[in-house]
Amino acid sequence: MYKPDNTDWKIIELLNEDGRMGKTEIARRIGGISARTVTNRINVLIKEGVINIRAFINPESVGYGVMADVYIQVEPGRVREVAEQVAEFPQTSYVACATGESDVSASLRLRSIEELFQFVDEKLGKIPGVRRTLSYILPLKLKDIDTWMPPHVLDENEKDKS
Amino acid sequence: MYKPDNTDWKIIELLNEDGRMGKTEIARRIGGISARTVTNRINVLIKEGVINIRAFINPESVGYGVMADVYIQVEPGRVREVAEQVAEFPQTSYVACATGESDVSASLRLRSIEELFQFVDEKLGKIPGVRRTLSYILPLKLKDIDTWMPPHVLDENEKDKS
Amino acid sequence: MYKPDNTDWKIIELLNEDGRMGKTEIARRIGGISARTVTNRINVLIKEGVINIRAFINPESVGYGVMADVYIQVEPGRVREVAEQVAEFPQTSYVACATGESDVSASLRLRSIEELFQFVDEKLGKIPGVRRTLSYILPLKLKDIDTWMPPHVLDENEKDKS
Amino acid sequence: MYKPDNTDWKIIELLNEDGRMGKTEIARRIGGISARTVTNRINVLIKEGVINIRAFINPESVGYGVMADVYIQVEPGRVREVAEQVAEFPQTSYVACATGESDVSASLRLRSIEELFQFVDEKLGKIPGVRRTLSYILPLKLKDIDTWMPPHVLDENEKDKS
Amino acid sequence: MYKPDNTDWKIIELLNEDGRMGKTEIARRIGGISARTVTNRINVLIKEGVINIRAFINPESVGYGVMADVYIQVEPGRVREVAEQVAEFPQTSYVACATGESDVSASLRLRSIEELFQFVDEKLGKIPGVRRTLSYILPLKLKDIDTWMPPHVLDENEKDKS
Amino acid sequence: MYKPDNTDWKIIELLNEDGRMGKTEIARRIGGISARTVTNRINVLIKEGVINIRAFINPESVGYGVMADVYIQVEPGRVREVAEQVAEFPQTSYVACATGESDVSASLRLRSIEELFQFVDEKLGKIPGVRRTLSYILPLKLKDIDTWMPPHVLDENEKDKS
Amino acid sequence: MYKPDNTDWKIIELLNEDGRMGKTEIARRIGGISARTVTNRINVLIKEGVINIRAFINPESVGYGVMADVYIQVEPGRVREVAEQVAEFPQTSYVACATGESDVSASLRLRSIEELFQFVDEKLGKIPGVRRTLSYILPLKLKDIDTWMPPHVLDENEKDKS
Amino acid sequence: MYKPDNTDWKIIELLNEDGRMGKTEIARRIGGISARTVTNRINVLIKEGVINIRAFINPESVGYGVMADVYIQVEPGRVREVAEQVAEFPQTSYVACATGESDVSASLRLRSIEELFQFVDEKLGKIPGVRRTLSYILPLKLKDIDTWMPPHVLDENEKDKS
Repeated sequence: MYKPDNTDWKIIELLNEDGRMGKTEIARRIGGISARTVTNRINVLIKEGVINIRAFINPESVGYGVMADVYIQVEPGRVREVAEQVAEFPQTSYVACATGESDVSASLRLRSIEELFQFVDEKLGKIPGVRRTLSYILPLKLKDIDTWMPPHVLDENEKDKS
Repeated sequence: MYKPDNTDWKIIELLNEDGRMGKTEIARRIGGISARTVTNRINVLIKEGVINIRAFINPESVGYGVMADVYIQVEPGRVREVAEQVAEFPQTSYVACATGESDVSASLRLRSIEELFQFVDEKLGKIPGVRRTLSYILPLKLKDIDTWMPPHVLDENEKDKS
Repeated sequence: MYKPDNTDWKIIELLNEDGRMGKTEIARRIGGISARTVTNRINVLIKEGVINIRAFINPESVGYGVMADVYIQVEPGRVREVAEQVAEFPQTSYVACATGESDVSASLRLRSIEELFQFVDEKLGKIPGVRRTLSYILPLKLKDIDTWMPPHVLDENEKDKS
Repeated sequence: MYKPDNTDWKIIELLNEDGRMGKTEIARRIGGISARTVTNRINVLIKEGVINIRAFINPESVGYGVMADVYIQVEPGRVREVAEQVAEFPQTSYVACATGESDVSASLRLRSIEELFQFVDEKLGKIPGVRRTLSYILPLKLKDIDTWMPPHVLDENEKDKS
Repeated sequence: MYKPDNTDWKIIELLNEDGRMGKTEIARRIGGISARTVTNRINVLIKEGVINIRAFINPESVGYGVMADVYIQVEPGRVREVAEQVAEFPQTSYVACATGESDVSASLRLRSIEELFQFVDEKLGKIPGVRRTLSYILPLKLKDIDTWMPPHVLDENEKDKS
Repeated sequence: MYKPDNTDWKIIELLNEDGRMGKTEIARRIGGISARTVTNRINVLIKEGVINIRAFINPESVGYGVMADVYIQVEPGRVREVAEQVAEFPQTSYVACATGESDVSASLRLRSIEELFQFVDEKLGKIPGVRRTLSYILPLKLKDIDTWMPPHVLDENEKDKS
Repeated sequence: MYKPDNTDWKIIELLNEDGRMGKTEIARRIGGISARTVTNRINVLIKEGVINIRAFINPESVGYGVMADVYIQVEPGRVREVAEQVAEFPQTSYVACATGESDVSASLRLRSIEELFQFVDEKLGKIPGVRRTLSYILPLKLKDIDTWMPPHVLDENEKDKS
Repeated sequence: MYKPDNTDWKIIELLNEDGRMGKTEIARRIGGISARTVTNRINVLIKEGVINIRAFINPESVGYGVMADVYIQVEPGRVREVAEQVAEFPQTSYVACATGESDVSASLRLRSIEELFQFVDEKLGKIPGVRRTLSYILPLKLKDIDTWMPPHVLDENEKDKS
């Protein structure tokens, strides 16, 4: 497992704010590092699976304003198989296998409550092995995976500042 | 609300695959569009809140291999206030207000089951207004918000291909 | 208790379809009854509490498109008191005391999911004695109390027709 | 969507109190409006689906004193189909599709607890696709849809009075 | 429906304490009533279904020291049929149809926890239409139906004494 | 512990059918036993706590037609204390301490659904230490403790007959 | 049933601390007893089923660091049969039949969360008669059966010391 | 972490069957190893925490025939503190912190159902921070931690035999 060093983390933080920031700008902001090294390190971080750099879409901004969590109970022995089928629907923005009451947890993004209802009843409900679906609409999202930074790195930063 | 046109969507899809793809490369792949227009359109898409371009981190790759969902029950009347405090912890990668059994839903990323337990008991459990927390470890994530594309755009693409 | 006879039920059925149907029209449709008798009987039915004649509003048509059921758990011994306060909010379209898991059940009509969330968190959640609220959005209503007719009267009609 | 103006709301409020109030009386109470205009506006409000004017029946007054809520769990993929069948029974006074624990929610009006039990076991329980029914008797109803007025209209009124 | 008068209630209370108390003794204790009248009234009370006079057995005293409540979920539409079969087992001391989570509620009396487990798994669990059984052992019974007296009669007594 | 023999069980069965059956009649029906011995044995069975002979009242016959089960959750450490207070109300016909979801289980007999609601909200709900009450109305009782006979005695009888 | 006396309990306590303590050492520590008697008593205690002396393995120390409880719901009438099959898997460290929500309770010891998920989905979930499995990961174990001593023996010790 | 080799596992298996088996006997059964080496290895296995060798007591054999699981809900932020107090009671044979519905899970061993009830109500229920306890009696235990062997070692054995 590749272990990012301090300089890597500085690059990652800048790219987390602006994924298209130029290599020269990054080098300038960090200091004591060449633009070429910046490019090399970004390539390593991507190749080692530490980061992805992507444009990702804000669903509200393109009309998908209804968010919901769906908890799916599945026939025992078919959890993974069902999860894979749920993940194929573009209506799901997040899919995981779970422990406890729910076997598969999914997040949905839809244009209206009616569309949500139809999708759950007519699509999810008809996947073989699905036994029950419970949908809960989410009125407010405060945070998502795109801005996640490892707590121990943030702690280091705090220390550096003080 | 800005409504991306066909060309915008093509740009978004390319940037969703590789957020640092150069403007010339994008122009070349789409065809019939200048690199300068590509830059202009990207700037509009970002300014209008349609997309964010970011490096985001794969928590597993940096040692945060334990994923969990936490459902938080809150004293009535304090849901939003609690959600905001939960979102401030770097251990949470996702926070939303919910309807139904849970008042605030959060996703956690931690380095071990022990760290999860400690964080929930000693941090989340001590936020004023929290009445109960239920944590469920997730053994497998199949999909996340970073690759989400609006279903109706994907449908269009399907049609174009056929 | 006033027991409506056959003629009363015929009047009620006509007024259930059109609450402003004229007395002459009603008399004509039923046959063998004067307009004055129709008026008298309507007055009795209203005075005896058998029927109400009202304009009632279709919430969707005036922008209140989000329907939700809220189940409220209440400190033991304060159920009725809480129910009365819930009923005072114009946002509730239905309020009842319940048995089982829920102590007070209410239906809400709101303009958006955000408004629903705010109303539940900031208004319902702050009624003294409320311990927990569970909201579930309803994607589709098929029937409401306004068209209810007693089953045994409908059975009679069936027999009359055959 | 037709947007009722101030005068429309005044008419609606009067008709909500007494659905058979004469046009002349309405015109007199509002002031500055002819009886003919009142009639025209009522017709528009009905045609646009803003209001219905109906006699509706108080079930208690005709012997249907037992109210119950029934929560129906349905085989995934058959929610709407089951809801439609539930709505056909005259014993149901309200039917909606729901999110969360219940798939279809219905209100019942019956003459006795025994009748309730028989109806649920012998009628609802035998609809194909129904997996489980949970009935809860309601000891007290405080408010129903018939007197619902949009909160923002009531707010306006408050302001007018002050 | 036969409505017991004051004297009837006095007889019932004496027989509730000692079901074999002689008619002469009862007459003496009440006063102003003949032994023959006592006998007549007892016969009427039994014939009208107001009381039963029985020896009933204290299960603990004959080795049946394990009490449990069993809640049975039943395929919709088969509740009564299952309840009737549950009532046929001598191991059940109480059987009722229920509303809410449980469809049929039964009380069991057994000689050991093992016997309870075997009875539920091998007998109740195999009744056609039973979908799930939940057993809860009762550590302590404080009161049963055999000493029940109508609250309004007890209230009257209180008043007489004061 | 007194262990009833065969003859005792025959006496008990006769008294379970008719608690006032005369000693001579019992002796005659059993055969080979004197009336005096019957009396002696009945006295022993009562003194040893094996049986009680009582007139007990059929609540329906005296207007108490609404049966309900109430499950009471209690502050930890106060279960027995609460159970004792619940048992003091004449409205309860059965009270036991329970394991599992409910801490105290009680059966109620009331004259109407309204009376049930009031009793639970105003009486049970106000016992110190009660945290939550869940009431479920029972539409049908099929069997109660008054006719209970030990299964092994019934088994013996079966064998004797064959 | 063999009833260990005071000396037996002293031997058991020493062997509970160190199962391989020599007979001479045990005799010396207790005093007034020969090594031969110690051996005889140990043999009796084992033969009578009072104790087992075993090396048992600390799963964490050999890489099995993930503990989980699994609650299994079973088709009615197949509880024991399923429990026996669950017990055959070496992945289970504890298996019991239960009352209440769960029919069979098992503890698992695995090397990772992924292994847990796979085992539950692919092995437990495919046992015929299993209807649902709920897994909960345990972050911390504080005590297990291996150090259990009967409370009344510990109480005696307390008294002896004072 | 010490990694036991093949010979270690053979020693462990023999000691799991009989914890007092002599070193010479173990050496003889395994073959190609001296008694002195056996002793050395046992000492290492114990010192490294791989195994414990203990006499442990069969609770049934000494009168503790009632087994129960108790699930304890705890005020958020006090889980570990409560678990530690629960573990101090000799009535608990197993205590762990849990995720999901229960915060602390404990197993109890008691002499009767009454003792169980009293212990839960009077001891567990009074630990500060305990909010709710749910007890479920276990009718049958099939397997416990004392005979646990790592699945991958058992797999190896299988291969060796074939």
